[in-house]
This record gives sequence, C-alpha cells and structure tokens, in this order.
Amino acid sequence: MSIERRWPHAEITADLAALRARGPLVHCLTNVVASTLTANVLLAIGASPAMVHEEQEAAGFTSIAQAVLVNVGTITEATARAMEAAARTAAAKGVPWVLDPVGVGALPWRRRFARGLLAYRPGVIRGNGSEILSLAGSADGGKGVDSTASSADALTAAASLATTTGAVVALSGATDFITDGSEVVEVPGGNVMLTRVTGTGCALGAVIAAFLGAGCPPLRAATAASAVFSTAAETAMVYSHGPGSFTVAWLDVLANLDA
Amino acid sequence: MSIERRWPHAEITADLAALRARGPLVHCLTNVVASTLTANVLLAIGASPAMVHEEQEAAGFTSIAQAVLVNVGTITEATARAMEAAARTAAAKGVPWVLDPVGVGALPWRRRFARGLLAYRPGVIRGNGSEILSLAGSADGGKGVDSTASSADALTAAASLATTTGAVVALSGATDFITDGSEVVEVPGGNVMLTRVTGTGCALGAVIAAFLGAGCPPLRAATAASAVFSTAAETAMVYSHGPGSFTVAWLDVLANLDA
Amino acid sequence: MSIERRWPHAEITADLAALRARGPLVHCLTNVVASTLTANVLLAIGASPAMVHEEQEAAGFTSIAQAVLVNVGTITEATARAMEAAARTAAAKGVPWVLDPVGVGALPWRRRFARGLLAYRPGVIRGNGSEILSLAGSADGGKGVDSTASSADALTAAASLATTTGAVVALSGATDFITDGSEVVEVPGGNVMLTRVTGTGCALGAVIAAFLGAGCPPLRAATAASAVFSTAAETAMVYSHGPGSFTVAWLDVLANLDA
Repeated sequence: MSIERRWPHAEITADLAALRARGPLVHCLTNVVASTLTANVLLAIGASPAMVHEEQEAAGFTSIAQAVLVNVGTITEATARAMEAAARTAAAKGVPWVLDPVGVGALPWRRRFARGLLAYRPGVIRGNGSEILSLAGSADGGKGVDSTASSADALTAAASLATTTGAVVALSGATDFITDGSEVVEVPGGNVMLTRVTGTGCALGAVIAAFLGAGCPPLRAATAASAVFSTAAETAMVYSHGPGSFTVAWLDVLANLDA
Repeated sequence: MSIERRWPHAEITADLAALRARGPLVHCLTNVVASTLTANVLLAIGASPAMVHEEQEAAGFTSIAQAVLVNVGTITEATARAMEAAARTAAAKGVPWVLDPVGVGALPWRRRFARGLLAYRPGVIRGNGSEILSLAGSADGGKGVDSTASSADALTAAASLATTTGAVVALSGATDFITDGSEVVEVPGGNVMLTRVTGTGCALGAVIAAFLGAGCPPLRAATAASAVFSTAAETAMVYSHGPGSFTVAWLDVLANLDA
Repeated sequence: MSIERRWPHAEITADLAALRARGPLVHCLTNVVASTLTANVLLAIGASPAMVHEEQEAAGFTSIAQAVLVNVGTITEATARAMEAAARTAAAKGVPWVLDPVGVGALPWRRRFARGLLAYRPGVIRGNGSEILSLAGSADGGKGVDSTASSADALTAAASLATTTGAVVALSGATDFITDGSEVVEVPGGNVMLTRVTGTGCALGAVIAAFLGAGCPPLRAATAASAVFSTAAETAMVYSHGPGSFTVAWLDVLANLDA
C-alpha cells in the first residue's frame, strides 16, 4: 500500500464549498449521546441533519435523503430494525451510507448485527482501531467504546476490510488513515482534545456521510471530513482551556471554516 | 386578518415574571436531539422540565403537570403511545398542551399520527412553514425537518388550521407569525443563528407550554415565547462568533432576561 | 449520627489521582437528557463512559465494566429490562453500582421498579430529598424531577434507607449529605448554578460510580464525587455569567482539577 500524506488542500476546499452549496439532507440513525453534537456539527458545515429511527419511517426517509449514517452506539432491538431498513433501502436506491460500528469490539450482539449490515454495501466504514480490528475478524475488544489499539496497529485489518467489503475504511486515531484497500491517505493532527469530548468520532461519521451526499466519492469524502475536523480542532485549541470551551470554539470554527 | 406588529412589551415582561414566580412543571415528550437544550432553556426561563415518555407513566404525569409538550421529532411506536396517552389526559383534565409536528411534511406516518392528536385539542401548534402547510393539508414536504416554505407563505394555511382545530398556530421562521385564525401577531427578529443550532425550534415549543402552564392564554403564551427567544437571540449575537458561542450566550441571556 | 463536616482534602486528591490513573469503564444506563453531559463529565475526570441500554447487551457489558450507573430518569419498559439485567449481573459478579432514582417521588411505576432493584444491593443510592424520602417510604412526591424537600429534611430517611439496604445514601441539595446509616459526611457548597443546568445531579451519580470503579469504598466514593463537583462549581462560577457559560467553565475546571 502506498501512503499519501496529505490530500490536496484545494480539493478539500472545493468539496466543502460544494457541500455548503448543496446542503445535503443526511438521515442519521445514531446514538442518543452524540445526537445533539452530530446535528450541530452537520449544521455548522452546511448539511441538513434529520434523526429518524422509527422502523416505519426509516426506509421512506432514506429514499429522500442524500446520504445515511448508521451508528450503533446505543443500538436497541427497535432501532436495529430501523437501521436495517435504512441500510437495505440505501443499497437498493443507491443512496450512499456510512457505517459506524461503535463498540463492536466489546459487544458481540452488535458486532453480529454490524457484520450483517455489510451486505448492504456501506460506502464508508468509520471506526477506531479496536472497532475496525473487531469488524475485520481480529480479537481486539477495546475498552467499552474506546480503542485499545492505535489506528496504525489496525491499518492492515482496515485495508483487508476495505478489500472484502468494497467500502472505504476510515480509521480514527491520533492519526487518521483512510483506505480503499490499495491506497492509504494519512490525515495527521487529530487533536487529543477530540477524544476528550463525547461524540466527536460519531459526528465525523456523519460529516463523511454529508460529503458523500454532496457527491464526493468515498475516499475523498472520508479524507475531506477528517481534514476539516483536524483543521478546525487545531484552530479551536487556541481558544480553549479544556473540553467545555474546546467544543464551543470547535463548533464556531467549523461554521466559519470557509471564511 | 389584521396583523399586529408587536405585542405590548409590558405584557411580555409581566408574563415572564409570572412564569418565574410559578415555575410551572412542564411534561415534555420530545425528541432525543433537543432534550438537553429544551430542559436547559426551560430551567433558564424559570420552569421545571421533566421528560417522561413511558406509556405507563405518561397519563399520570400529565395529570400533575401544569403543561405538556408533544414533539414528534424522533417519534417511535413506543413514544407515540405515550404521547397519545398524554394528549388524551391533557384534554380530559384541562391541562394545556403544545403540539410540535416536527418533520410531518416529509414523513407520512407521523403526519397521520399528528393529525390524529388534533382531536385532543392542543392549545398551540408550533411548526415551520412546511410543517404547518403539511398539517393543514397542503402538499409542501419540506426538506427533512427543515422548511422549504417561508413562514409568510404558510400564513393562510396557519390561519385555516387555527380555525379548524381551535388551536393557536405559531409559525416559526425569519419572522414568527402567531394566529388564532382571526388575529395575527408578527414577531420580527428571529435571528438566523437560531436556525444554525439544533433544537431551538423544539425549545420554543416547550417555552410556549411553560407560558401556558403559567396561566397565559394561547395567543399570548406563543407571542411571549417568541418575543423572549428573539430578544435573547439579538443580545446573544453580540457575544457570539458562531453557533457554539451563540448557544452559550443565549442560555446566559435567557436566564438573566429580567435583570 | 455523628456529622463530619469535611472529608480530608488529601484523601480526595489521592482518590482523584487513582481514578485518573485507572480510567475505570463505567457502564451507564441513564436518561437521554443527561447522557451527553454525563459522558463529558466522566471523560473530564478521567473515566471511560459507555452508554449501553439494550437488554441483550446489558449483562455482558456489566461483566466487563468496573462500575455501573442505573438512572431511571427517562426509563421505558425496554430500558427497565436492561437496567434489571445490569443490576442483577452487577450483584452476581461483584461489580459496584449506583442507583439514581430520578423522579420516583412523583411516579409510582418507576418507584416500584427502583425499589425492586434494591434487592441487587447498590453500593450507593444518590438522589434529592424528595426521591430519597419516597424511596424510603415517606410521602413526599417532589415536583416532577425536582425536590420539594431540602436535603436536611430527608437526612433521617436517608440514614434509615442506608441501614435497610446496606447502601450508602448520597443526598443532594444545597448541602450534600452522605451516610451509611451511622456516619454522616456533610459536603457544603453545592453551588445553586448546578441546579440550573440539567443533568448535573445525574452526572454526579455517574462520577460516584467512577470512584467506586477506581476502588474507593462507597462512603468515600460518594464524598469524593460531591467534593469534586462542589469545588469545580465554585471555581467555574468565577468565569460564568449564567447557566450556559457555567457549564462550559465547569467542564474545563473538572478536566483541569489536578493541575
């Protein structure tokens, strides 16, 4: 695999402008902890978020959305049914979608469920090292929803998962790696503060979906999302004294990124 | 219809003071994205929020509340049963309640549900242009939970919905319109930043409920809530650099409004 | 009962250092309103939060967690089954757990449920005056999820509940009282601003669980958590103009407490 260190800055700027111009409707089936931050981050970058997770509404809403996020962070039997309906519809209608397998390392019930969703061909799978290792069939369980593996440790598993599933795998960590199984893009600078605020990884999955919904192909969508997060985090650090003020500044910076 | 541009400032001040003095208990059956902001906004203006959405508890809790909010933003079959129990009890016991038909334009399952709730005679229906048009029987679907119609476009539908249901309709947008079918009150200055922060519209529905619970009649309750939101947003803009710092400043201003 | 006014400062400092060193995984079954703040507060003090509330995952996840929080704030039939599975497993495997009986004063269905959980021997029960009085069998109903009794009013009931259940009872209010039925520790200075921000009491229950998960015995865990909250709130007040900026500053201070 060849590692590309940086994606051309001009392309990311163009993709963000396209996203803001189109304002894609992103159908989010996500967890209750990250819902508010996810919606606010999507609004800040110019997308239209909508959280709809009732089984009777999920398929219909996926049909009118530009992209879908399935995040299993606080999955229940009821939301699992809605997630499956959304993923199935997305596959049938060609709506691009992102799978975020939160906690699958430690939780076998959701791991089986998330693996079952791979049949619906997500465009991007986003997770931390433990989650990607676990989804790819390795043993690392992680520590709850936190990773016990670095993103670098999981890179081989990520490439193999990408090859098997046809999805781009976005591996989050101190450095983010994005791979389609042959190419690997490295996005440095994932600020440590992003790991001290709950839901930032989940929001990243949503922003990848937003870039897909704006028309970016998967490798480019995942790279743009990581680059935007990392750039905004770096700037936000200047104005922050801890995780509270960081979150506030980070949302402000995300909303003003094109200025 | 006659349009009144501004509600007397003195009445709104008096209503806010009454709300703070009574601290009404507001039973919120609302969506997971807006729950935290809604609770914090209710606390900031002096109400007591409580989110109770289990069917076995909803009727009993409505009986002891001063007002109820039913917001269908992330409705499920289970919460729909609780919402119906709460609305039925509110009608039976004379507890005033607010219906917020989030997303009914795009989602037929919840549209049928929300229409069914009209039989329980909400005091106020709050929504954006697309939601009010859709609830009133027009075709505008909106874009997910965002409106594709301006509040002005939906004013005729709002007046008709008010006449049919007996509810006051509070139409949110760049300008808020509040109508009982004959009178229309216009509240200018809904800051655009309120549309960049998730859940502010949902929180407005909750604050209308709080004013109802403090004893205001529906037209006055909806007007006071809109005026309070808009005034606080205008002040908060001075201290904000984006949606993150806006939310923080807006909560501070709401809590200090009577100072 | 003898009342001890302050716990030795040195012990609390040592306990916080131990918590940060161990980073206990805290399995939270909590309400949707407080989920995000709870996760952020746990991250700020150095714990690893994970919200898992599906029945099929709860027992397994409790088995690998260092501590469990059961908070019934937005309980449903489905989450009640998960909570019971988690509490039963915690009792069987010796995983310490905290019961937060939110709203049991006003809501008989959850009161019966919470009383049933006492059989699984929580290490700590945390609640406001009305909740503790109600759980102990007294009549005070509270006002929704807010207390109509001061913590001092409920102290006798708290001590009796502690003796009956074997749990330490942490009574939250203007002054926090923590008792095992014989000793009572008083933690002064619970800032009033903590009552103006939703979910701070719920987050306190989670932080007590984190101290239990770091190895502190129950009386010491509940005292350390109250002291940490109260100290951080006092400092945060200096930087705050209302509930919005207070929350931001408070999270920053919690994250920097050992500095």
